[in-house]
Amino acid sequence: MNMRITSYKDLAQKLLNNDNFVILTHKSPDGDCLGAGFALCYFLRGLGKRANVLNSDGVPKKFEYLAREYEEQKLENEFVMSVDVADTKLLGEKLEHYADKVSLCIDHHGSNKDYAKEMYLDADASAACLIVWELLCDMGAEPSGIIAECLYTGLATDTGCFMYENAGYRTHVAAANLIKAGVNAAKINREMFIVKSKGRIAAETELMGNLKFFENDSIAVMVVKNELMARTGLDRAELDGIAPLPMTVEGVKVGLTFKQQEDSTDTYKVSVRTVEADASAIALQFDGGGHSRAAGFTVLGELDELILRAVNAVKRFI
Amino acid sequence: MNMRITSYKDLAQKLLNNDNFVILTHKSPDGDCLGAGFALCYFLRGLGKRANVLNSDGVPKKFEYLAREYEEQKLENEFVMSVDVADTKLLGEKLEHYADKVSLCIDHHGSNKDYAKEMYLDADASAACLIVWELLCDMGAEPSGIIAECLYTGLATDTGCFMYENAGYRTHVAAANLIKAGVNAAKINREMFIVKSKGRIAAETELMGNLKFFENDSIAVMVVKNELMARTGLDRAELDGIAPLPMTVEGVKVGLTFKQQEDSTDTYKVSVRTVEADASAIALQFDGGGHSRAAGFTVLGELDELILRAVNAVKRFI
Repeated sequence: MNMRITSYKDLAQKLLNNDNFVILTHKSPDGDCLGAGFALCYFLRGLGKRANVLNSDGVPKKFEYLAREYEEQKLENEFVMSVDVADTKLLGEKLEHYADKVSLCIDHHGSNKDYAKEMYLDADASAACLIVWELLCDMGAEPSGIIAECLYTGLATDTGCFMYENAGYRTHVAAANLIKAGVNAAKINREMFIVKSKGRIAAETELMGNLKFFENDSIAVMVVKNELMARTGLDRAELDGIAPLPMTVEGVKVGLTFKQQEDSTDTYKVSVRTVEADASAIALQFDGGGHSRAAGFTVLGELDELILRAVNAVKRFI
Repeated sequence: MNMRITSYKDLAQKLLNNDNFVILTHKSPDGDCLGAGFALCYFLRGLGKRANVLNSDGVPKKFEYLAREYEEQKLENEFVMSVDVADTKLLGEKLEHYADKVSLCIDHHGSNKDYAKEMYLDADASAACLIVWELLCDMGAEPSGIIAECLYTGLATDTGCFMYENAGYRTHVAAANLIKAGVNAAKINREMFIVKSKGRIAAETELMGNLKFFENDSIAVMVVKNELMARTGLDRAELDGIAPLPMTVEGVKVGLTFKQQEDSTDTYKVSVRTVEADASAIALQFDGGGHSRAAGFTVLGELDELILRAVNAVKRFI
């Protein structure tokens, strides 16, 4: 067991005591890891320090606005930290050489593998961005401008725009203050949640039309094959955030989304979404992890068989 | 011009000075008018007063949970008030006899026709429920239980689950406190925003597939005909909340949804949704009204001609 940091005071001290930050974020980056990473980076630079945000997959187009004031800096004596990274496996290929060099991890995944020398873990926080927002406030900062935008983005994206169970008192208070500080929340939400390309709409329509139902419609399975991407011309990033779709059907208690992988067509990344069941426990059976209502795992094999195995594993949770 | 009430203190006094309340809500009721109406009703009853909530169309199944502690009471010397009703035309057939008898109106529509003897109007409030929440707090109440559920429902439904421009600081602070008071927000949101019947999903798929685009895809028009309802077996209430769909297509700046009416097949209720344009001003051209990003009007005639007229009227706003 590595060291635990349990107060914002001590966490702040870590940041104040260092000057060159490498901030690692997880592969297949989302609004929360990028929001928290860039918010911290801009904040630290504002204190006169140097900081870079690294991601194995780069910044997807959808999130480029978070990086619009960012250019990589030259660092000395790097202090390596990670945000929103539950497991070093999630660092991805380009960052895996940092796996045993992480000095500080800030995370909100209860399933965190405790890989960093020191860790600030708050599994009650809806988003890593909530932790960063509270930390910055505790340090006397009043996040505004792009820092506030980054933080709002993480709060909104990790809570399904405040729709899910994890959006509680702290999250709404943070959102209220970030909006007061000038964040154009409606614009961000429109890009994150509302607007879809015609191709994406066509793909969703097809995927929803081909849902497979099990156990009296309480389990719904969606399969995203490479063939769909090839045929519709969508790239993988454009299919981000489809995992909640199976859960939109009345009566469905667990939704599973199988995404065929690009490099290995027998490999599927599976997203688990639940109404009441413990998604993290379901994913754990396949060596995966995540949160209580949203988790994931990876499997290899023949698709129909994989689906049956997964459905069987889910049964006892509903 | 009737009298304006401009403080919660004066508004509270109105409520405290009366004992038998008829609370009118608008036809085709939504989560906000019912949430605000029932919250006020339960609150007034808690003060030992009598109060009823009336609606021309009754309470739709989706919102029945708001009325689960409600039974109509016998009233004497009725004090007639309305919540979230911008125009007496919106009272609907069964309540139209109250049109010239409304003593107090609480509303958040800038387009309010000022029909009540006294009015508390706050066009900056995202929802009538926000006004009621702030009023109750100002009166020293700490809304909880079903009152808090009612208020959260209105906040969430009128802001698209905090997605739209109207969800600002006050709205998030109210939501934070209502969740702290025990509201199961995720459960409400799931019912309001996520779960759809298979029939509804099929209908949405068909409607999205038949969108008509104008002006380089900047205007999208959706048409909901009675025939669709007949064929899919959906009832009208199940098609509530589809107006934002045309706006989900990339590049669309104004979305128009034409809903054929049951009783008069040449009559269409048109919902206007906009990204930046003034929806209320667009609706006003057809004698309608609403908010800056969501408004509506009713037209009568041949469909293709009505669509062209509407599209022409929208053009100069984009």
